[in-house]
Amino acid sequence: MKRILLLVLALFLYSNLLLCQIDKNKTDKYNSVADKLIKSALKEERGYKLLKELCRMGPRQTGSDVSLKAIYWAEKKMKEAGFDKVWLQKTMVPRWLRGKGENAFISSSKKYKGRKLKIASLGGSIATPLKGITAEVLEINSFDELEAKKETAKGKIIFFNKPLDRTASDTFNGYSSAVNQRYEGPVLASKAGAIGAIIRSVTTSDDNNPHTGGSGSQEGTPKIPVVAVGVQDADFLTSALREEPGLKVTFKTYCYTLPDVESFNVIGELTGTELPNEVIVVGGHYDSWDLSVGAHDDGGPCLQAMEVLDLFKRNNIKPKRTVRCVFFINEEYGLNGGLEYGKYAETSGEIHIAAIESDRGCFTPRGFSAHTDENSIEKMKSWLPVLNKSLIEWIKPGEGGSDIVPLKNAKARIGYFPDNQRYMDVHHSANDVFESVHPREMELGSAAMAILAYLLSEEGL
Amino acid sequence: MKRILLLVLALFLYSNLLLCQIDKNKTDKYNSVADKLIKSALKEERGYKLLKELCRMGPRQTGSDVSLKAIYWAEKKMKEAGFDKVWLQKTMVPRWLRGKGENAFISSSKKYKGRKLKIASLGGSIATPLKGITAEVLEINSFDELEAKKETAKGKIIFFNKPLDRTASDTFNGYSSAVNQRYEGPVLASKAGAIGAIIRSVTTSDDNNPHTGGSGSQEGTPKIPVVAVGVQDADFLTSALREEPGLKVTFKTYCYTLPDVESFNVIGELTGTELPNEVIVVGGHYDSWDLSVGAHDDGGPCLQAMEVLDLFKRNNIKPKRTVRCVFFINEEYGLNGGLEYGKYAETSGEIHIAAIESDRGCFTPRGFSAHTDENSIEKMKSWLPVLNKSLIEWIKPGEGGSDIVPLKNAKARIGYFPDNQRYMDVHHSANDVFESVHPREMELGSAAMAILAYLLSEEGL
Repeated sequence: MKRILLLVLALFLYSNLLLCQIDKNKTDKYNSVADKLIKSALKEERGYKLLKELCRMGPRQTGSDVSLKAIYWAEKKMKEAGFDKVWLQKTMVPRWLRGKGENAFISSSKKYKGRKLKIASLGGSIATPLKGITAEVLEINSFDELEAKKETAKGKIIFFNKPLDRTASDTFNGYSSAVNQRYEGPVLASKAGAIGAIIRSVTTSDDNNPHTGGSGSQEGTPKIPVVAVGVQDADFLTSALREEPGLKVTFKTYCYTLPDVESFNVIGELTGTELPNEVIVVGGHYDSWDLSVGAHDDGGPCLQAMEVLDLFKRNNIKPKRTVRCVFFINEEYGLNGGLEYGKYAETSGEIHIAAIESDRGCFTPRGFSAHTDENSIEKMKSWLPVLNKSLIEWIKPGEGGSDIVPLKNAKARIGYFPDNQRYMDVHHSANDVFESVHPREMELGSAAMAILAYLLSEEGL
Repeated sequence: MKRILLLVLALFLYSNLLLCQIDKNKTDKYNSVADKLIKSALKEERGYKLLKELCRMGPRQTGSDVSLKAIYWAEKKMKEAGFDKVWLQKTMVPRWLRGKGENAFISSSKKYKGRKLKIASLGGSIATPLKGITAEVLEINSFDELEAKKETAKGKIIFFNKPLDRTASDTFNGYSSAVNQRYEGPVLASKAGAIGAIIRSVTTSDDNNPHTGGSGSQEGTPKIPVVAVGVQDADFLTSALREEPGLKVTFKTYCYTLPDVESFNVIGELTGTELPNEVIVVGGHYDSWDLSVGAHDDGGPCLQAMEVLDLFKRNNIKPKRTVRCVFFINEEYGLNGGLEYGKYAETSGEIHIAAIESDRGCFTPRGFSAHTDENSIEKMKSWLPVLNKSLIEWIKPGEGGSDIVPLKNAKARIGYFPDNQRYMDVHHSANDVFESVHPREMELGSAAMAILAYLLSEEGL
């Protein structure tokens, strides 16, 4: 009996030792892969070099010629990189165009007549009549204020002037504090009988470049022309209005909408060696606004997603599960690409383990948010010592990103969170240029997502 | 007996409840103070505005007229801010000067004769003879290689070309991998009989600006002229040497050293309301190199330290213990300010609870390192939920910063660690300008240090 007990004890200890050894071997392997991915990303800067090429093409507004050129270019680059599968996924997209020559100026004022204002139509705005619209300006700093003053709004131009809350340490929280002026503002203004709306740019920047973005509309409420104004000119306008409350502004916009056209998501994958039917998506949206090349929003992040697969290829890492990069088309103006991929995922018979979206710029990594169950969060948290090599500090519950919301059956929808202090300076404006991206910051982001995709591919969720 | 027991139990529970309540009240208070400090820093951007003023004065090289102008300006600003005590702490400092017109070119080559190289003398270098030095160039990529080739080094110019290791995710680790060429390189070159040394700039940047910095010397080893070369020109030189191994370079430097002069640390404090004799120092070094205004290194960080006190003043926070900001003079070229304050601290009869140094740029906060005992580390870690509001993620054991090393009796020497991906692009070069500092990133750093200083002042260590 004693000998049997001793034998059982010995076996127990041995199996534990074995498990520890397996765990240690795994940890060593994961650490070594993470080191390799980071070094490779920082040394070769492949994603950054591709971004430079991409940005030379110009803005990739949904439905534009450049967006198509960029789509075929990405397909070619993925094929050249040797991904196992590369394909274009068709979807129809809307074509809203700005037109040329939009402008604004003070048209009636003792002191400021003729003074120009730097504006940019918001996405979805209609054109003014050719002579523009001219009206007194009613400044509004909250929807409550509009409600209180709505009797006086008729025939006027509403100037929504609530600034982004700069005191929030997270600039996305700051953004949330003011962006509803862009979505709901135009509708409320129209309902109050206003003939146009000017929205203070939702930005942390102090320069005068207007920041565009989608504007809201509502079935049954007539559309009015809506423009963003640079923050310096917004500050000017509010002080001019204090001096001369009756002051009038004229603005002209030339926006128009063409029929929907064909466009594509660009998809590339490394097919899983053991569980090819289980998929980890990494992606961003490929369209930009028309005011700049969208280096941070969201061209760079797309190339980070492609770099995830390319890092695997360059370092001969063969994922157990399929790792797929998706460049979603038209996040900015309708989410068509995300919806299309979502439909595909419902019928493809694949299991989507996780989808990671990068749509918060290419700055230094900070963390990942995940829309998933508690166990999966805990599992991912246990990987933090490995992820931390790429400067990831945290995993938190939260949403992933607009394009992957339609992936309802994905076990986890994950958002990549880089540092965001500079993001709202460039977002949706002429500032979002290649030169605002730092190679190291971008490449560490690629490495962070590559490490997470690798661990998801090895361990599942 | 039973009643006594019940009474004791009741008292016990009550006292525990009371303690919990006190703890909760404290936590609420700390959170509320942290929120206030962050909002105030981000809203008013006072430190950033002062940095703009400071940078307009020009480089603050130790012993220079501008450094003195900046010292008196800082003293005035601290007085205007209403600090309880403001004083200058005298110390003698060395005066090494670059002189004007240093230059370098390929002087003997079939293909590249006359091609210029962008150089900057390293701090402490001597001048060449007026006609410059002309010699064959021996490229060296490690000290072992120099050792192996030292027989051939005599009469030559040694070109130390090992690049900073860009694959390290922490750029300070990358820096450490190559900076010994600047310290030990010149001494080893001189010992091998070389007549001059050219060091590849220790930087992550791809531009061609040379990055200076202190160079090493050794009693008994003759000094030779040493310069940094821009990385583009370093790459050119190495490829030219491959084509033409006998190629000669001429360089001229005009450095000179004047007798030591009087300079000052600038010190301001808010005297503790309850424990005025216990001191928390926050500081940076006020001198810069001469190639730029040292916005990140270390003018901005000094103004972050001043902003800590100013944030307290503006928000009517009266620290229990004394909180003192110190602008140390001459970290770059001798540490005189740090040593002087260290001497003062030994005899002042005060207790230095902690010293926090900011000397890693003005980027987004990441963490604090602390040279202290384990209990103090744990205590500070328990404050992370409050510190995290300013984006601080971690407290780790480590050193604080050069200027506070002489504070041997301080219970904790703490280093502030912002994100460092962009730091080595600007460090010690013409790139370190005001425009490279982002207001939000700088102000979040001020807030992070203010929160830590506040907690140290309330809780001690």
